[in-house]
Amino acid sequence: MSELTVAIEPEHDPQLVAAVEGAGGRVVPLDEARVLVWIGAGPKGFPELSDAVEWVALKTAGIEAYVAAGVIDDQRLWTNASGFYAEGVAEHALALLLAGLRQINTSVLRHWDKEPIDTGVRTLRGATVAIVGAGGIGASLIPRLTAGGASVIAVNRSGRPVDGAKLTLPTNRLDEVWGQTDHVVLAAPSTPETRHLINERTLAALPSHAWVVNVARGPLIDQKALYNALREGVIAGAALDVTDPEPPSPDDPLWSLPNVIITPHIANPASGLTREMAPFLAENMRRFIAGDDLIARVSTGRNY
Amino acid sequence: MSELTVAIEPEHDPQLVAAVEGAGGRVVPLDEARVLVWIGAGPKGFPELSDAVEWVALKTAGIEAYVAAGVIDDQRLWTNASGFYAEGVAEHALALLLAGLRQINTSVLRHWDKEPIDTGVRTLRGATVAIVGAGGIGASLIPRLTAGGASVIAVNRSGRPVDGAKLTLPTNRLDEVWGQTDHVVLAAPSTPETRHLINERTLAALPSHAWVVNVARGPLIDQKALYNALREGVIAGAALDVTDPEPPSPDDPLWSLPNVIITPHIANPASGLTREMAPFLAENMRRFIAGDDLIARVSTGRNY
Repeated sequence: MSELTVAIEPEHDPQLVAAVEGAGGRVVPLDEARVLVWIGAGPKGFPELSDAVEWVALKTAGIEAYVAAGVIDDQRLWTNASGFYAEGVAEHALALLLAGLRQINTSVLRHWDKEPIDTGVRTLRGATVAIVGAGGIGASLIPRLTAGGASVIAVNRSGRPVDGAKLTLPTNRLDEVWGQTDHVVLAAPSTPETRHLINERTLAALPSHAWVVNVARGPLIDQKALYNALREGVIAGAALDVTDPEPPSPDDPLWSLPNVIITPHIANPASGLTREMAPFLAENMRRFIAGDDLIARVSTGRNY
Repeated sequence: MSELTVAIEPEHDPQLVAAVEGAGGRVVPLDEARVLVWIGAGPKGFPELSDAVEWVALKTAGIEAYVAAGVIDDQRLWTNASGFYAEGVAEHALALLLAGLRQINTSVLRHWDKEPIDTGVRTLRGATVAIVGAGGIGASLIPRLTAGGASVIAVNRSGRPVDGAKLTLPTNRLDEVWGQTDHVVLAAPSTPETRHLINERTLAALPSHAWVVNVARGPLIDQKALYNALREGVIAGAALDVTDPEPPSPDDPLWSLPNVIITPHIANPASGLTREMAPFLAENMRRFIAGDDLIARVSTGRNY
C-alpha cells in the first residue's frame, strides 16, 4: 500500500489531519512531503516549493489572489476547492431567498408590524427561479427549490440541460430569462463577461415581485442600479452574501433599505472550510495514489 | 348537472367566486344558498342560518372562537381549513429554521460583523429535526428538510409511521426526542396536553446548538423558560411565528435577544387565505355534489 506524505501548512488542522490519515497518508513537514495542503487565508506566506512537491491542494474555490501573486506554476498539479462547498452555498442561497419571500428581514427590523409584513409575504410554491451559472451550486440548489414547489431555469455556458431544471439556456441567451422568471440566484464566476450582469436594463426586465439573490461575487451586480431599482420598487428585494466593494461602506445606502438582506460573505463560512474540505481531500488522495484525475484541478489561466 | 348555490359572506372575494363558478356553482345571497362560505375574520357578525343551509365552510384552521361563540351546531355540515395552509406554513417553518442556522437575523442587526457571524453559521445538512405534531404541516415540511440533507423524527398522537421520517414516536414518548434531535419544529395544536411542552426541563435536555421553531401556537412554549435558556446559551436560538401573549409586549425582553427571530403570525398570512383556500373549496364542492366525505370536516367537541 502506498503511503502518501502530506504537509499541512501554515498550521495543522485536526479535521484535515484525520482526513489524510484516514486516506492512508502521513502528515509530515514540508521538506518530506509529496503533497502540500495549503490552508492559509491567502497566498501570503506561501512557501518556496521544491520539485519533490507533486501536488498542491488549496482550500478556497476562488484563486484570483494566488494567480495574481504568481504562486501557481506548471511544474506540479494544483487543485482548488471548486465544488467542495456547493451544498453549503446552495443552502445559504435558499435561506436568503426564503428570508426575502417570508419577510424575515422586515420582521426583525419592525417588531410585529403585522399588516405590511403579512401582505408582503410571498411563496416559493409555483414560482420560477433562474439560476445564473448553474454548476455545482446550481446542482445542489435545484432539488432544494423543487422540494419547495418551485421550478428552475438554469443558465450555463453550454446550454447543456441541467438535471431537474425545466429549461436550460446557454449564457448567450441570458436575456430570455428575465421575462420568464420570478426570482434570480447568481452563482456564476466573476469574469469580464459576468460583470454587471444585473444592471438597470436587466432589473427593469424582471417582474416587480422578483427577489435577486447573490451568492457568487459582488461585481456581478451593478450595485448603484440595484439600489435604485430597490428604492423605486422595480423589483421586490435583494439578498446578498457578496457585495462590491466588500464590505460595503457603513454609510452605503443599501443598509437603509428594508428590502435588502446582506450577510457578510458567509455562504461558505471560513470557520467551516476545513470540515467541508476534508472528505474531498481524502478522495483526491485516493485518486492521486491511483493515478486518476483529481477533483477540482486548476486550469492555469482561469481564476476558478 | 347539479348547480350548487353558494353564499360568500360577509363580502365577496374574487378568488372564491372564481372557485365556486369553476366548480359549477352559483354565488347567491344567503337566503338562496345551500352552502355558506364564511370568510369573516371570526364569528363576529356570523348570520342566523336557516335549515336550507346544509354546509358551512370556514376559512380558518383554528376554530376555537367559533366554538366559544356557540356558532357551530349539529344541524348541518361544517368544514374548517385544516390542512389547507400546510404547505405555506411548512415553507415558513423552513425559512425560520434556515434563517436561524444561517445567521440571517444577526446579519440584519449587525452590519457585516463578519467574524462572530461566520463562526455562528450552522447547516441543515446532516442534522436531525424533530417535528412535534407531525400532521399536514409535517407532511409538507419533511420533503423540504430531507432535500436539504436533514433527517426527521416525527411525533404524533398514534406513533403511526410518517412517510419520510427516519423515526416516528407517539406523543407519550416525547421525552425520548430531546436527546436525539438537533432542532425542534412545533406544529401541534394548542391543547391542555401541549401547553408548555417546551419548558425549562425540556430545553435543558436539548443540545446547546438547538434551534426551536414554533409555527403552531404560543402557549406550547413556556416563554419565560425560553428566554432564560436563550440568554444563558442552553440552546442556540428560537424562531417564533407565534408567541404568548400575541403580540409580545414592546418591552418583552425576547425582542432584545440576538438569537431570537419573531415573525408576526404570518406563516399563514391573512392576505393569502382565500387564494390558498380556493382550490380546496372547489374540491369540497365537487365532493358535496357527489355526496362524498368533505375535506376538513369539523368534529364537534374539538377545536381544530
